[in-house]
Amino acid sequence: MKTMDDLFLHHLKDIYYAEKQILKALPKMVKATKSPELAEAFETHRQETEGQVQRLEQIFEILDKPARGVKCEAIEGLIAEAKEVMDEAKESGVLDAGLLASAQAVEHYEIARYGTMSAWANQLGLSKAVKLLEQTLEQEKAADRLLTRLAESAVNAEAA
Amino acid sequence: MKTMDDLFLHHLKDIYYAEKQILKALPKMVKATKSPELAEAFETHRQETEGQVQRLEQIFEILDKPARGVKCEAIEGLIAEAKEVMDEAKESGVLDAGLLASAQAVEHYEIARYGTMSAWANQLGLSKAVKLLEQTLEQEKAADRLLTRLAESAVNAEAA
Repeated sequence: MKTMDDLFLHHLKDIYYAEKQILKALPKMVKATKSPELAEAFETHRQETEGQVQRLEQIFEILDKPARGVKCEAIEGLIAEAKEVMDEAKESGVLDAGLLASAQAVEHYEIARYGTMSAWANQLGLSKAVKLLEQTLEQEKAADRLLTRLAESAVNAEAA
Repeated sequence: MKTMDDLFLHHLKDIYYAEKQILKALPKMVKATKSPELAEAFETHRQETEGQVQRLEQIFEILDKPARGVKCEAIEGLIAEAKEVMDEAKESGVLDAGLLASAQAVEHYEIARYGTMSAWANQLGLSKAVKLLEQTLEQEKAADRLLTRLAESAVNAEAA
């Protein structure tokens, strides 16, 4: 990590690893929830994530580097927590609340990462990469807004 | 994690642990950067974090539970990454960019956590806790906005 190029490539590998882990976790979350709305949101996001992985592969191509991840401890921790919730929560309201919390923490991780990487790509004059990163960033923000709405409606249903 | 109370308490312990780790990491980040603006931002946030820890202790009191953390892998991963940047980045522009990226990822983690916990506290009728969590949430959002401004001005300075 001597130059901005190194830093950018390191973070690209980190988020590539993270997206692949998320791609594995989402089908388990779809299966675990009993809420059709939540299952649909996770399934939609799984499909979006496939596209996000492809965009990252396009950026590796732009840089002329092999698409390779590097272990990202933060995402491992976030996904481990979602698994803990799936293993331990017995009641479906508690399970869904825990899954929503984990999913939003993941979205925020990605929002921070894509925001930073888009700014760096801009600095490095990688205009094609900026466009790809911004597309994904908008998807992550929209996913987070949807999860917030689902969390609010779950809370309201519980209160009613 | 059988009930919403359990889930809330678990996340309270998780963020309590996280804030204490952040409190240890920030002075190292203050020392590492050569940018006076960044050092000031990290130092201000260290002071804010002390208040945030106290607010969490007030919530433990409200719940009549001992203030105790539970290891949070996500924050460990995020802080490990900031350490990696401090160890490896030689050039001060690269170091600051990496530190800003790590700090923003931490802020987003906290924004997700405090947002979720405030909604849960509301659901559980813990109005005093809601107020405390919202105060911290606003501080985290403001800290993230400041970091974004600093990152943008660093990019502009580099370009000039």
